[in-house]
Amino acid sequence: MSDPLKVALLGCGTVGSAVLRLLEEQAGDLTARIGRPVEVAGVAVRRPDRHPDVPAHLLTTDAHGLVTRDDVDLVVEVIGGIEPVRSLLLAAFEAGKSVVSANKALLADDGVELHAAAAKAGVDLYYEAAVAGAIPLLRPLRESLAGDQLRRVVGIVNGTTNYILSRMAETGHGFTEALAEATELGYAEADPTADVDGFDAAAKAAILASLAFHTPVSATDVYREGISAVTATDVARAAEIGCTVKLLAICERVLADGGDSVAVRVHPAMIPTTHPLASVGGAFNAVFVEAEAAGQLMFYGQGAGGDATASAVLGDLVAVARNRVAGVAGPGVTTYAGLPARPIAETPTRYHVSLDVADKPGVLATVAQEFARHGVSIATVRQDGHGDAATLVIVTHSAPDAALSATVTALREMPAVRGVTSILRVEGLS
Amino acid sequence: MSDPLKVALLGCGTVGSAVLRLLEEQAGDLTARIGRPVEVAGVAVRRPDRHPDVPAHLLTTDAHGLVTRDDVDLVVEVIGGIEPVRSLLLAAFEAGKSVVSANKALLADDGVELHAAAAKAGVDLYYEAAVAGAIPLLRPLRESLAGDQLRRVVGIVNGTTNYILSRMAETGHGFTEALAEATELGYAEADPTADVDGFDAAAKAAILASLAFHTPVSATDVYREGISAVTATDVARAAEIGCTVKLLAICERVLADGGDSVAVRVHPAMIPTTHPLASVGGAFNAVFVEAEAAGQLMFYGQGAGGDATASAVLGDLVAVARNRVAGVAGPGVTTYAGLPARPIAETPTRYHVSLDVADKPGVLATVAQEFARHGVSIATVRQDGHGDAATLVIVTHSAPDAALSATVTALREMPAVRGVTSILRVEGLS
Repeated sequence: MSDPLKVALLGCGTVGSAVLRLLEEQAGDLTARIGRPVEVAGVAVRRPDRHPDVPAHLLTTDAHGLVTRDDVDLVVEVIGGIEPVRSLLLAAFEAGKSVVSANKALLADDGVELHAAAAKAGVDLYYEAAVAGAIPLLRPLRESLAGDQLRRVVGIVNGTTNYILSRMAETGHGFTEALAEATELGYAEADPTADVDGFDAAAKAAILASLAFHTPVSATDVYREGISAVTATDVARAAEIGCTVKLLAICERVLADGGDSVAVRVHPAMIPTTHPLASVGGAFNAVFVEAEAAGQLMFYGQGAGGDATASAVLGDLVAVARNRVAGVAGPGVTTYAGLPARPIAETPTRYHVSLDVADKPGVLATVAQEFARHGVSIATVRQDGHGDAATLVIVTHSAPDAALSATVTALREMPAVRGVTSILRVEGLS
Repeated sequence: MSDPLKVALLGCGTVGSAVLRLLEEQAGDLTARIGRPVEVAGVAVRRPDRHPDVPAHLLTTDAHGLVTRDDVDLVVEVIGGIEPVRSLLLAAFEAGKSVVSANKALLADDGVELHAAAAKAGVDLYYEAAVAGAIPLLRPLRESLAGDQLRRVVGIVNGTTNYILSRMAETGHGFTEALAEATELGYAEADPTADVDGFDAAAKAAILASLAFHTPVSATDVYREGISAVTATDVARAAEIGCTVKLLAICERVLADGGDSVAVRVHPAMIPTTHPLASVGGAFNAVFVEAEAAGQLMFYGQGAGGDATASAVLGDLVAVARNRVAGVAGPGVTTYAGLPARPIAETPTRYHVSLDVADKPGVLATVAQEFARHGVSIATVRQDGHGDAATLVIVTHSAPDAALSATVTALREMPAVRGVTSILRVEGLS
């Protein structure tokens, strides 16, 4: 065994602390697996006094100085957010350091630039922990499926919203009550916006789509709808048609004669309870992949948590350390396909619509006509009469999202329609 | 783009044909992902006249000549079996070629020797397709989880037996009828021994255990029981206690003060219907992984089939081709842990036992005493009387397998026991 590889750790919150602890506990195994020992060169934090567990001589507030230090080989970044991390990683690459990051927002925003900087420097950029925590997912997409054509990646990639939706289904509560419970139990942050409004899932969807389709996709290319508008009625209606409501990240390659495109979106959707993703409950994550030759695959595991995320970080650390020992960089990320992003308006989706209508002859015909006028074909309709009112539950076939959205707007204006009680997209129905 | 990388294909059955087709269909994508085009240098088969679809100038019966040809860079082996493949791959390594194989039997038998030969030559040996077909599983174990400590890998890794057991549960049929149906539908081979008697699963278990625990495990270290003794009664009893019967490949690291060991076994077992593996039906495969930091993970997908297996082969081919372009070998497989294999007799398991007994006072006490005498603790017992007879359904706590086995032998001898109607191990109960 020769000299140790030196690691600079940026950030020391829940994940960073777990990384430090596991590096120590597993020192012997890591040395055997890498071929050289790994040693922590320094830990950059904002407030050193808040980290009494970290040896004082390792702590520094000078992150830039740390990542460019001559004796540092590898940088592990678990700070999160865009700046100053972006500048720090670019400085690290320029100084010839390989980087392991858990930063979904940064990778989703600036992945192309960061990959280019890493490639130029001949070093590695790995970030398995950025999507679906401990689940080995990005390496399978980048490497195991590199000989296949991916068609679709559909995932539950945000534990907070999955917990909230699971609780709504279990208790019949509305969104506000379920969110309050999640906050109390620590499953939701004090400011839950990033999770609840789908920003977190959208960043992950951008990363997944980029890797799956070998094309640059950033968070701004992702259509995004959160779960705050999901009602107890939506959840109940879903159950009535054998479905459950999940916040899905959906990445699709849309095949077309004029040229393929990618459609990437995050929104709540009804999926059949028989779908493999339907039973993914609580804080777990799962990602369903459809590839041309491999067929259907699913990856399931813990999406968050200090130790689970640290496991993914350390797996990447072993990979980049092995590459460093071998004097090479691992396979980069290719974006040769350069596919355009298809706007949600043109993306084919299916809707579930529940309407309160007057229970009079001809209402169903009028409503059906409105769908037809927008070129939307109805798959199933159920009519339940009660007194002088009736409920119409309609599930459409696939149509461009704009046509479905326009249909719903028109339905709201119809005199025969007393109210649109539930609208949700539907996925996974055959 | 420079000169093409040249691939020698050994074998051209279902998987080999799919590899050839996909190499052609995806030539553009593969070139972009690898950085150089890939070209087939030759296809070694036993009977060239049986492969009219392969260009005649590529076909050869001289496999040894092909793998040692100067212009060949990479070898893809989809022949299967031990010899002549073992000798061919050793010759390929010696000639400096990297190898992608789908050969579970060979890797399970001679993995250590083959890895050593590849390492000595500074080339790659990858074999994702050897276990669980298209499911990216070996790369996650080798790389993604390389920073974690694996505790347990439990998988449904044989589609034929899973199909038969699924059908037994659905129809109430016995093993013989279900096997006949599977044979007729092409899910079982004419000689189903390798699948039905667990040899196939045992080879895969050996490979999984080696990678998971960084220790050499060969097929002879694996305890093996097939499914031919599973009865309709076993399946019915399982349903009564909320379980389903699956053929499991179980790889465990057994922690002990005197030194850890690995216990690797393949046998049918009852698992709760709520367990993630319980709903894996038909010809699908799934592998459940427990790691110290990552927690519980599951991988699910198609375990066999030409295209699915070819997807895994091509993923490996892209990886070894990229390494070849970069002039390096990928991370090898480490077996530094050198853990001993724990024999089944000492491995802790749990049993379900159903007994027909005389419905007389004191029988339960006598039976319970027999368990206690062997140091086996009973978790639950259910007694159903009918006339002068009764059925006792017992689920034990965990105990060394030898103690459980001795208990059952003793029970068979007891005058109060009219018959042991079902014995199966139980997994996944808390």
